Amino acid sequence: MSENGSLRRGRPGYDQQGILEVAVAAFNQYGYDATSMGVLADRLGLSKSAIYHHFASKDEILERALDDALSALEGVLGESDATRGRAADRLEAVLGGAVHVLVEKLPSVTMLLRVRGNTEVERRALARRRAFDRAVTSLVEEAQAEGSLRSDIDPSVVARLAFGMINSIVEWYRPGGKEDADRLAGDVIAIALDGLRMPTSNRVEELIERGPA
Amino acid sequence: MSENGSLRRGRPGYDQQGILEVAVAAFNQYGYDATSMGVLADRLGLSKSAIYHHFASKDEILERALDDALSALEGVLGESDATRGRAADRLEAVLGGAVHVLVEKLPSVTMLLRVRGNTEVERRALARRRAFDRAVTSLVEEAQAEGSLRSDIDPSVVARLAFGMINSIVEWYRPGGKEDADRLAGDVIAIALDGLRMPTSNRVEELIERGPA
Repeated sequence: MSENGSLRRGRPGYDQQGILEVAVAAFNQYGYDATSMGVLADRLGLSKSAIYHHFASKDEILERALDDALSALEGVLGESDATRGRAADRLEAVLGGAVHVLVEKLPSVTMLLRVRGNTEVERRALARRRAFDRAVTSLVEEAQAEGSLRSDIDPSVVARLAFGMINSIVEWYRPGGKEDADRLAGDVIAIALDGLRMPTSNRVEELIERGPA
Repeated sequence: MSENGSLRRGRPGYDQQGILEVAVAAFNQYGYDATSMGVLADRLGLSKSAIYHHFASKDEILERALDDALSALEGVLGESDATRGRAADRLEAVLGGAVHVLVEKLPSVTMLLRVRGNTEVERRALARRRAFDRAVTSLVEEAQAEGSLRSDIDPSVVARLAFGMINSIVEWYRPGGKEDADRLAGDVIAIALDGLRMPTSNRVEELIERGPA
Protein backbone atom coordinates (compact mmCIF):
# COMPACT_ATOMS: atom_id res chain seq x y z
CA MET A 1 0.00 0.00 0.00
CA SER A 2 1.39 3.42 -0.85
CA GLU A 3 1.94 5.88 1.98
CA ASN A 4 -0.41 8.25 0.24
CA GLY A 5 -3.10 5.59 0.12
CA SER A 6 -2.85 4.87 3.81
CA LEU A 7 -2.89 8.56 4.65
CA ARG A 8 -6.03 9.04 2.62
CA ARG A 9 -7.84 6.22 4.30
CA GLY A 10 -6.71 7.33 7.77
CA ARG A 11 -8.05 10.86 7.39
CA PRO A 12 -11.56 11.91 8.26
CA GLY A 13 -13.57 13.90 5.76
CA TYR A 14 -12.93 17.65 5.82
CA ASP A 15 -15.67 20.22 6.11
CA GLN A 16 -15.13 23.78 4.88
CA GLN A 17 -13.55 24.88 8.17
CA GLY A 18 -11.19 21.89 8.17
CA ILE A 19 -10.02 22.64 4.65
CA LEU A 20 -9.52 26.27 5.62
CA GLU A 21 -7.31 25.33 8.57
CA VAL A 22 -5.08 23.00 6.58
CA ALA A 23 -4.83 25.55 3.75
CA VAL A 24 -3.85 28.41 6.09
CA ALA A 25 -1.19 26.24 7.74
CA ALA A 26 0.22 25.42 4.28
CA PHE A 27 0.13 29.08 3.16
CA ASN A 28 1.99 30.13 6.31
CA GLN A 29 4.58 27.39 5.91
CA TYR A 30 5.30 27.57 2.17
CA GLY A 31 3.92 30.97 1.18
CA TYR A 32 0.59 31.67 -0.52
CA ASP A 33 2.00 31.89 -4.04
CA ALA A 34 4.03 28.70 -3.66
CA THR A 35 1.00 26.69 -2.49
CA SER A 36 -1.11 25.53 -5.44
CA MET A 37 -4.55 23.94 -5.21
CA GLY A 38 -2.79 20.71 -6.23
CA VAL A 39 -0.45 20.92 -3.24
CA LEU A 40 -3.44 21.59 -0.99
CA ALA A 41 -5.32 18.61 -2.42
CA ASP A 42 -2.29 16.39 -1.70
CA ARG A 43 -2.03 17.66 1.86
CA LEU A 44 -5.71 17.09 2.48
CA GLY A 45 -5.82 13.73 0.70
CA LEU A 46 -8.70 15.13 -1.35
CA SER A 47 -9.20 15.68 -5.06
CA LYS A 48 -9.01 19.25 -6.30
CA SER A 49 -12.69 19.09 -7.23
CA ALA A 50 -13.54 18.18 -3.62
CA ILE A 51 -11.84 21.43 -2.55
CA TYR A 52 -13.64 23.37 -5.29
CA HIS A 53 -16.88 22.02 -3.85
CA HIS A 54 -16.20 24.23 -0.79
CA PHE A 55 -14.18 27.13 -2.25
CA ALA A 56 -14.43 28.63 -5.73
CA SER A 57 -10.71 29.44 -5.81
CA LYS A 58 -7.50 29.67 -3.78
CA ASP A 59 -8.23 33.38 -3.53
CA GLU A 60 -11.53 32.62 -1.81
CA ILE A 61 -9.70 30.52 0.82
CA LEU A 62 -7.35 33.45 1.43
CA GLU A 63 -10.30 35.85 1.64
CA ARG A 64 -12.03 33.67 4.24
CA ALA A 65 -8.86 33.38 6.35
CA LEU A 66 -8.23 37.14 6.24
CA ASP A 67 -11.89 37.85 7.04
CA ASP A 68 -11.65 35.51 10.02
CA ALA A 69 -8.73 37.51 11.47
CA LEU A 70 -10.12 40.93 10.56
CA SER A 71 -13.64 40.27 11.86
CA ALA A 72 -12.20 39.17 15.19
CA LEU A 73 -10.05 42.32 15.44
CA GLU A 74 -12.96 44.55 14.43
CA GLY A 75 -15.08 42.73 17.00
CA VAL A 76 -12.66 43.85 19.72
CA LEU A 77 -13.46 47.50 18.91
CA GLY A 78 -17.16 46.79 19.44
CA GLU A 79 -16.89 45.01 22.80
CA SER A 80 -18.41 46.81 25.78
CA ASP A 81 -15.05 47.45 27.50
CA ALA A 82 -13.83 49.09 24.32
CA THR A 83 -16.86 51.33 23.89
CA ARG A 84 -17.55 52.66 27.39
CA GLY A 85 -15.55 54.59 29.97
CA ARG A 86 -12.36 56.61 29.71
CA ALA A 87 -10.47 56.41 26.43
CA ALA A 88 -7.33 55.11 28.19
CA ASP A 89 -9.31 52.21 29.64
CA ARG A 90 -10.94 51.53 26.27
CA LEU A 91 -7.47 51.47 24.69
CA GLU A 92 -6.39 49.00 27.36
CA ALA A 93 -9.36 46.78 26.42
CA VAL A 94 -8.46 47.01 22.71
CA LEU A 95 -4.79 46.11 23.29
CA GLY A 96 -5.75 43.17 25.51
CA GLY A 97 -8.48 42.03 23.11
CA ALA A 98 -6.07 42.16 20.16
CA VAL A 99 -3.58 39.92 22.00
CA HIS A 100 -6.40 37.43 22.63
CA VAL A 101 -7.38 37.46 18.95
CA LEU A 102 -3.77 36.93 17.94
CA VAL A 103 -3.32 33.95 20.25
CA GLU A 104 -6.70 32.38 19.44
CA LYS A 105 -6.43 32.93 15.69
CA LEU A 106 -2.67 32.70 15.32
CA PRO A 107 -2.67 31.11 11.81
CA SER A 108 -5.11 33.56 10.21
CA VAL A 109 -3.56 36.59 11.94
CA THR A 110 -0.13 35.42 10.74
CA MET A 111 -1.51 35.39 7.18
CA LEU A 112 -3.04 38.83 7.64
CA LEU A 113 0.27 40.30 8.80
CA ARG A 114 2.03 38.99 5.69
CA VAL A 115 -0.40 40.51 3.22
CA ARG A 116 1.31 43.04 0.96
CA GLY A 117 -1.53 44.06 -1.35
CA ASN A 118 -0.64 41.94 -4.38
CA THR A 119 -4.25 41.03 -5.26
CA GLU A 120 -7.69 42.60 -4.96
CA VAL A 121 -8.46 40.34 -1.96
CA GLU A 122 -5.24 41.45 -0.28
CA ARG A 123 -5.95 45.12 -0.98
CA ARG A 124 -9.41 44.87 0.58
CA ALA A 125 -7.85 43.23 3.65
CA LEU A 126 -5.26 46.01 3.88
CA ALA A 127 -8.01 48.62 3.68
CA ARG A 128 -9.77 46.97 6.65
CA ARG A 129 -6.46 46.85 8.55
CA ARG A 130 -5.94 50.55 7.91
CA ALA A 131 -9.46 51.32 9.16
CA PHE A 132 -8.69 49.33 12.32
CA ASP A 133 -5.42 51.26 12.77
CA ARG A 134 -7.28 54.55 12.32
CA ALA A 135 -9.79 53.56 15.01
CA VAL A 136 -6.90 52.79 17.39
CA THR A 137 -5.20 56.09 16.52
CA SER A 138 -8.47 57.96 17.25
CA LEU A 139 -8.73 56.25 20.60
CA VAL A 140 -5.16 57.34 21.42
CA GLU A 141 -6.02 60.93 20.38
CA GLU A 142 -9.08 60.88 22.59
CA ALA A 143 -7.10 59.53 25.55
CA GLN A 144 -4.45 62.21 25.04
CA ALA A 145 -7.16 64.87 24.92
CA GLU A 146 -8.80 63.62 28.12
CA GLY A 147 -5.38 63.76 29.80
CA SER A 148 -5.12 60.06 30.58
CA LEU A 149 -2.31 59.27 28.11
CA ARG A 150 0.94 61.18 27.57
CA SER A 151 0.54 63.57 24.65
CA ASP A 152 4.19 64.03 23.68
CA ILE A 153 4.10 61.15 21.17
CA ASP A 154 2.23 61.34 17.86
CA PRO A 155 -0.99 59.25 18.17
CA SER A 156 -0.36 57.34 14.95
CA VAL A 157 3.17 56.46 16.14
CA VAL A 158 1.70 55.28 19.45
CA ALA A 159 -0.77 53.04 17.59
CA ARG A 160 1.95 51.67 15.31
CA LEU A 161 4.42 50.95 18.11
CA ALA A 162 1.80 49.36 20.37
CA PHE A 163 0.55 47.13 17.55
CA GLY A 164 4.13 46.48 16.44
CA MET A 165 4.68 44.99 19.88
CA ILE A 166 1.44 42.97 19.72
CA ASN A 167 1.93 41.74 16.15
CA SER A 168 5.51 40.62 16.87
CA ILE A 169 4.02 37.94 19.11
CA VAL A 170 3.20 35.85 16.00
CA GLU A 171 6.98 35.48 15.45
CA TRP A 172 7.56 33.46 18.59
CA TYR A 173 4.29 32.49 20.25
CA ARG A 174 3.52 28.77 20.25
CA PRO A 175 0.30 27.36 21.72
CA GLY A 176 0.97 25.51 24.97
CA GLY A 177 4.01 27.63 25.83
CA LYS A 178 4.51 29.11 29.28
CA GLU A 179 2.52 32.28 28.55
CA ASP A 180 -1.20 32.01 27.90
CA ALA A 181 -3.32 34.72 26.25
CA ASP A 182 -4.36 36.37 29.53
CA ARG A 183 -0.80 36.55 30.77
CA LEU A 184 0.52 37.92 27.48
CA ALA A 185 -2.29 40.47 27.25
CA GLY A 186 -1.40 41.59 30.78
CA ASP A 187 2.29 41.86 29.85
CA VAL A 188 1.56 43.98 26.76
CA ILE A 189 -0.78 46.28 28.68
CA ALA A 190 1.70 46.60 31.56
CA ILE A 191 4.53 47.59 29.23
CA ALA A 192 2.56 49.85 26.88
CA LEU A 193 0.52 51.68 29.49
CA ASP A 194 2.61 51.61 32.65
CA GLY A 195 6.12 50.97 31.38
CA LEU A 196 8.86 48.68 32.60
CA ARG A 197 10.58 51.13 34.90
CA MET A 198 9.75 50.65 38.57
CA PRO A 199 7.76 53.62 39.80
CA THR A 200 9.73 53.31 43.01
CA SER A 201 13.01 54.15 41.24
CA ASN A 202 13.87 57.75 40.27
CA ARG A 203 10.54 58.54 38.85
CA VAL A 204 8.22 58.33 41.80
CA GLU A 205 10.32 60.73 43.85
CA GLU A 206 10.01 63.20 41.05
CA LEU A 207 6.25 62.65 40.93
CA ILE A 208 5.81 62.91 44.65
CA GLU A 209 7.76 66.15 44.75
CA ARG A 210 5.53 67.50 42.02
CA GLY A 211 2.41 66.29 43.84
CA PRO A 212 -0.97 65.42 42.30
CA ALA A 213 -1.99 67.52 39.31
CA MET B 1 19.46 54.32 -28.50
CA SER B 2 17.96 51.67 -26.28
CA GLU B 3 16.78 52.73 -22.83
CA ASN B 4 19.13 50.18 -21.39
CA GLY B 5 22.04 51.68 -23.28
CA SER B 6 21.34 55.18 -22.02
CA LEU B 7 20.92 53.92 -18.46
CA ARG B 8 24.25 52.17 -18.63
CA ARG B 9 26.04 55.22 -19.88
CA GLY B 10 24.37 57.50 -17.34
CA ARG B 11 25.45 55.41 -14.35
CA PRO B 12 28.72 55.85 -12.55
CA GLY B 13 30.83 52.77 -11.85
CA TYR B 14 29.86 50.83 -8.74
CA ASP B 15 32.29 49.96 -6.00
CA GLN B 16 31.62 47.03 -3.68
CA GLN B 17 29.49 49.15 -1.33
CA GLY B 18 27.43 50.49 -4.21
CA ILE B 19 26.72 47.00 -5.52
CA LEU B 20 25.76 45.90 -2.02
CA GLU B 21 23.23 48.73 -1.67
CA VAL B 22 21.53 48.03 -5.00
CA ALA B 23 21.49 44.29 -4.26
CA VAL B 24 19.94 44.72 -0.80
CA ALA B 25 17.26 47.03 -2.23
CA ALA B 26 16.44 44.39 -4.87
CA PHE B 27 16.39 41.55 -2.30
CA ASN B 28 14.00 43.54 -0.11
CA GLN B 29 11.73 44.38 -3.03
CA TYR B 30 11.56 41.04 -4.85
CA GLY B 31 12.81 38.56 -2.24
CA TYR B 32 16.27 37.02 -2.01
CA ASP B 33 15.39 33.80 -3.82
CA ALA B 34 13.61 35.59 -6.64
CA THR B 35 16.58 37.90 -7.31
CA SER B 36 19.20 36.17 -9.47
CA MET B 37 22.69 37.47 -10.18
CA GLY B 38 21.39 38.11 -13.72
CA VAL B 39 18.62 40.36 -12.38
CA LEU B 40 21.16 42.19 -10.23
CA ALA B 41 23.47 42.65 -13.21
CA ASP B 42 20.57 44.16 -15.20
CA ARG B 43 19.68 46.50 -12.37
CA LEU B 44 23.27 47.65 -12.00
CA GLY B 45 23.92 47.89 -15.72
CA LEU B 46 26.95 45.67 -15.13
CA SER B 47 27.96 42.27 -16.46
CA LYS B 48 27.65 39.34 -14.06
CA SER B 49 31.43 38.96 -14.14
CA ALA B 50 31.80 42.57 -12.97
CA ILE B 51 29.69 41.66 -9.91
CA TYR B 52 31.71 38.48 -9.36
CA HIS B 53 34.81 40.67 -9.31
CA HIS B 54 33.48 42.07 -6.00
CA PHE B 55 31.47 39.15 -4.57
CA ALA B 56 32.11 35.43 -4.99
CA SER B 57 28.37 34.64 -4.88
CA LYS B 58 24.91 35.98 -4.14
CA ASP B 59 25.27 34.34 -0.75
CA GLU B 60 28.32 36.47 -0.04
CA ILE B 61 26.31 39.63 -0.79
CA LEU B 62 23.66 38.45 1.67
CA GLU B 63 26.32 37.63 4.25
CA ARG B 64 27.82 41.12 3.96
CA ALA B 65 24.42 42.80 4.31
CA LEU B 66 23.49 40.72 7.36
CA ASP B 67 26.91 41.34 8.91
CA ASP B 68 26.43 45.06 8.38
CA ALA B 69 23.17 45.02 10.37
CA LEU B 70 24.39 42.59 13.04
CA SER B 71 27.72 44.34 13.64
CA ALA B 72 25.89 47.63 14.17
CA LEU B 73 23.47 46.03 16.66
CA GLU B 74 26.29 44.25 18.48
CA GLY B 75 28.16 47.57 18.53
CA VAL B 76 25.27 49.10 20.50
CA LEU B 77 25.87 46.58 23.31
CA GLY B 78 29.50 47.71 23.52
CA GLU B 79 28.89 51.46 23.63
CA SER B 80 29.79 53.20 26.89
CA ASP B 81 26.17 54.07 27.82
CA ALA B 82 25.31 50.39 27.45
CA THR B 83 28.18 49.12 29.60
CA ARG B 84 28.22 51.50 32.58
CA GLY B 85 25.72 52.53 35.22
CA ARG B 86 22.45 50.98 36.34
CA ALA B 87 21.07 48.13 34.24
CA ALA B 88 17.81 50.03 33.54
CA ASP B 89 19.81 52.95 32.11
CA ARG B 90 21.97 50.56 30.06
CA LEU B 91 18.79 48.96 28.72
CA GLU B 92 17.53 52.42 27.79
CA ALA B 93 20.78 53.01 25.88
CA VAL B 94 20.43 49.66 24.07
CA LEU B 95 16.81 50.31 23.04
CA GLY B 96 17.67 53.80 21.79
CA GLY B 97 20.82 52.57 20.02
CA ALA B 98 18.88 49.79 18.30
CA VAL B 99 16.34 52.30 16.94
CA HIS B 100 19.22 54.37 15.55
CA VAL B 101 20.74 51.30 13.87
CA LEU B 102 17.37 50.40 12.38
CA VAL B 103 16.83 53.87 10.94
CA GLU B 104 20.42 54.29 9.70
CA LYS B 105 20.67 50.79 8.24
CA LEU B 106 17.04 50.27 7.31
CA PRO B 107 17.70 48.10 4.19
CA SER B 108 20.13 45.67 5.83
CA VAL B 109 18.09 45.46 9.07
CA THR B 110 14.99 44.75 6.95
CA MET B 111 16.89 41.84 5.32
CA LEU B 112 18.02 40.59 8.73
CA LEU B 113 14.46 40.53 10.07
CA ARG B 114 13.30 38.39 7.13
CA VAL B 115 15.96 35.72 7.55
CA ARG B 116 14.39 32.34 8.34
CA GLY B 117 17.48 30.10 8.44
CA ASN B 118 17.22 28.53 4.99
CA THR B 119 20.97 28.57 4.32
CA GLU B 120 24.18 28.31 6.32
CA VAL B 121 24.69 32.09 6.00
CA GLU B 122 21.16 32.67 7.33
CA ARG B 123 21.66 30.23 10.20
CA ARG B 124 24.86 32.00 11.27
CA ALA B 125 23.00 35.32 11.19
CA LEU B 126 20.17 33.86 13.30
CA ALA B 127 22.71 32.57 15.84
CA ARG B 128 24.12 36.10 16.17
CA ARG B 129 20.59 37.50 16.54
CA ARG B 130 19.87 35.00 19.30
CA ALA B 131 23.09 35.98 21.09
CA PHE B 132 22.01 39.62 20.87
CA ASP B 133 18.56 38.74 22.26
CA ARG B 134 20.18 36.81 25.11
CA ALA B 135 22.33 39.83 25.98
CA VAL B 136 19.20 42.01 26.10
CA THR B 137 17.37 39.43 28.22
CA SER B 138 20.33 39.35 30.67
CA LEU B 139 20.23 43.11 30.92
CA VAL B 140 16.51 42.95 31.75
CA GLU B 141 17.20 40.28 34.40
CA GLU B 142 19.90 42.45 35.92
CA ALA B 143 17.61 45.49 35.98
CA GLN B 144 14.85 43.45 37.61
CA ALA B 145 17.33 42.19 40.22
CA GLU B 146 18.55 45.70 41.01
CA GLY B 147 14.93 46.78 41.44
CA SER B 148 14.88 49.35 38.66
CA LEU B 149 12.54 47.40 36.33
CA ARG B 150 9.25 45.68 37.20
CA SER B 151 9.89 42.00 37.82
CA ASP B 152 6.39 40.61 37.18
CA ILE B 153 7.10 39.98 33.47
CA ASP B 154 9.41 37.21 32.25
CA PRO B 155 12.70 38.83 31.12
CA SER B 156 12.73 37.03 27.76
CA VAL B 157 9.15 38.20 27.09
CA VAL B 158 10.20 41.75 27.97
CA ALA B 159 13.11 41.53 25.50
CA ARG B 160 10.88 40.06 22.77
CA LEU B 161 8.09 42.61 23.20
CA ALA B 162 10.46 45.58 23.37
CA PHE B 163 12.31 44.45 20.24
CA GLY B 164 9.01 43.52 18.60
CA MET B 165 8.07 47.19 18.97
CA ILE B 166 11.46 48.36 17.66
CA ASN B 167 11.61 45.91 14.74
CA SER B 168 8.09 46.80 13.63
CA ILE B 169 9.44 50.22 12.68
CA VAL B 170 10.89 48.72 9.46
CA GLU B 171 7.30 48.12 8.32
CA TRP B 172 6.40 51.80 8.08
CA TYR B 173 9.47 53.99 8.57
CA ARG B 174 10.54 55.96 5.52
CA PRO B 175 13.62 58.22 5.54
CA GLY B 176 12.64 61.87 5.49
CA GLY B 177 9.32 61.28 7.28
CA LYS B 178 8.19 63.42 10.17
CA GLU B 179 9.98 61.32 12.81
CA ASP B 180 13.78 61.22 12.81
CA ALA B 181 15.87 58.59 14.60
CA ASP B 182 16.27 60.62 17.81
CA ARG B 183 12.57 61.27 18.05
CA LEU B 184 11.63 57.66 17.39
CA ALA B 185 14.22 56.39 19.86
CA GLY B 186 12.74 58.74 22.45
CA ASP B 187 9.21 57.50 21.67
CA VAL B 188 10.21 53.83 22.03
CA ILE B 189 12.04 54.48 25.31
CA ALA B 190 9.14 56.54 26.66
CA ILE B 191 6.61 53.81 25.92
CA ALA B 192 8.72 50.81 26.95
CA LEU B 193 10.18 52.26 30.12
CA ASP B 194 7.66 54.81 31.34
CA GLY B 195 4.45 53.76 29.61
CA LEU B 196 1.76 55.75 27.87
CA ARG B 197 -0.48 56.30 30.85
CA MET B 198 -0.16 59.74 32.42
CA PRO B 199 1.34 59.42 35.87
CA THR B 200 -1.07 62.16 36.92
CA SER B 201 -4.11 59.96 36.25
CA ASN B 202 -5.13 57.20 38.72
CA ARG B 203 -1.69 55.87 39.16
CA VAL B 204 0.13 58.73 40.79
CA GLU B 205 -2.43 59.05 43.56
CA GLU B 206 -1.91 55.42 44.32
CA LEU B 207 1.85 55.92 44.33
CA ILE B 208 1.69 58.99 46.52
CA GLU B 209 -0.49 57.20 49.04
CA ARG B 210 2.01 54.40 49.12
CA GLY B 211 4.92 56.87 49.44
CA PRO B 212 8.56 56.35 48.42
CA ALA B 213 9.89 52.84 48.89
